[in-house]
Amino acid sequence: MQLVSKAKSFGGEQRVYRHRSEATRTDMDLAVFLPREALEGFVCPTLVYLSGLTCSWQEITMQGLPQMHAAKHGMIFVAPDTSPRGEQVPDDEHYDLGQSASFYIDSTEQPWSEHFQMESYLTKELPGLLLEALPVDEDAIGITGHSMGGFGALMLALRHPELFHSVSAFAPICNPTHSVWGRKAFEAYLGEDESVWEAYDPCLLVQERGWEGDILIDQGLADEYFEDQLEPWAFEKACRKAGVELTLRLHGGYDHYYHFIASFLADHFEWHADRLAE
Amino acid sequence: MQLVSKAKSFGGEQRVYRHRSEATRTDMDLAVFLPREALEGFVCPTLVYLSGLTCSWQEITMQGLPQMHAAKHGMIFVAPDTSPRGEQVPDDEHYDLGQSASFYIDSTEQPWSEHFQMESYLTKELPGLLLEALPVDEDAIGITGHSMGGFGALMLALRHPELFHSVSAFAPICNPTHSVWGRKAFEAYLGEDESVWEAYDPCLLVQERGWEGDILIDQGLADEYFEDQLEPWAFEKACRKAGVELTLRLHGGYDHYYHFIASFLADHFEWHADRLAE
Repeated sequence: MQLVSKAKSFGGEQRVYRHRSEATRTDMDLAVFLPREALEGFVCPTLVYLSGLTCSWQEITMQGLPQMHAAKHGMIFVAPDTSPRGEQVPDDEHYDLGQSASFYIDSTEQPWSEHFQMESYLTKELPGLLLEALPVDEDAIGITGHSMGGFGALMLALRHPELFHSVSAFAPICNPTHSVWGRKAFEAYLGEDESVWEAYDPCLLVQERGWEGDILIDQGLADEYFEDQLEPWAFEKACRKAGVELTLRLHGGYDHYYHFIASFLADHFEWHADRLAE
Repeated sequence: MQLVSKAKSFGGEQRVYRHRSEATRTDMDLAVFLPREALEGFVCPTLVYLSGLTCSWQEITMQGLPQMHAAKHGMIFVAPDTSPRGEQVPDDEHYDLGQSASFYIDSTEQPWSEHFQMESYLTKELPGLLLEALPVDEDAIGITGHSMGGFGALMLALRHPELFHSVSAFAPICNPTHSVWGRKAFEAYLGEDESVWEAYDPCLLVQERGWEGDILIDQGLADEYFEDQLEPWAFEKACRKAGVELTLRLHGGYDHYYHFIASFLADHFEWHADRLAE
């Protein structure tokens, strides 16, 4: 991993890295905050944050102040990009497909499959790179995310419980086989056979595979996507059926965006810090 | 003032307003955070934040999380723009003059004087608008800022102690009659007679007029502008001569930008909250 930039922040260091990815066959950028403890060489719990549609690693890194919370808990904070990027990477004229809209899965379909291999990137390639370069405690890695990234966090945790030891989400797309965003992306990336999609839907995954811990979801009630795209009640029902403990907090007046995430980010750090310390 | 946008944040509300300014003869935008107490109608202490070169009200509003700190202390947070803007407003090809580089003074020179009347805007027009529209406690208004805005905060507080009851700054331009940025701006906006400039230099102002309270300045030691443009030691010396108590904190490793401000913003809110409560 090549260091692109660094800045001191809350006694630690905010870094941006670039590296060649074998999974996506592109260069990938990511942001990493290292608390003081990590700079001193101590192995640290780590929280991975997956961003939403139209975003990159930049929004959460510059907004919401994850550095403050990560420094408080002595956690490493990793914000990967939302997709492969570049002139050679296929894209779509709409914001909800293609670059910055990977949905964090491995595509099997043309023209996406050559580069859109984000599940492999996030669960096979990136952990190895992080463990090699940084004092990440491989037994204490949590994952969270927002909207498409909240879906990604739930989906990847449920599919890779050996890798992710705690999970939470902000306004996640809970039931993508049922939502417009999810169905469009799954059809493009995974093909028309809907039975294939089921292995990526958190509502179905949690019932099929369960989850050993508990799950935290925050959702704003003034969120314009609440009803049609996010459908937290479907995940609540699925967790109840599966016997998985869910804390679903519905916040009156909060929308889908930055101020909502920032307002509750401290609670998610505390949630992960508590569980990763066990 | 016309409400442009609003979002719930930390139990309060982040708003953006637009209004026609008589001082600048343009539309002016500003960001205002109202804590829960203000939304419930209680009169609140208020902190005004002046931004640096190239910025608008947006950077501090989206970065650094002033909402968290303002909510904690029950303070209103106001981020005005850095200059008049628009096609009819003169500008310069360089970032340190013209639009987003007002230096917060009233210009007397062509072509700037028609619109660049920021001292009048910030000390005469805006306080009236805020007091009329919002539950601002007019006896508890503090001012802070960054770089050019740090200069603005010091300069305006020292020139208008009846208006601003507490003052702090992040990496301010302390001695503008001596720095390249300051001399260029003062010559353009105030003309070639350097004796006129003196009434706007914090180092000279604090010796001539004093300050009833104490002053907080944070400065990063990895700040590229530290030596040539910011010169905090000049202000330290001036305060010492003037018998004004200055807390000047020099932070090893911190640069001039966002991560530096964010890392210490909580301390500035606490500083102002303590003093405005007296």
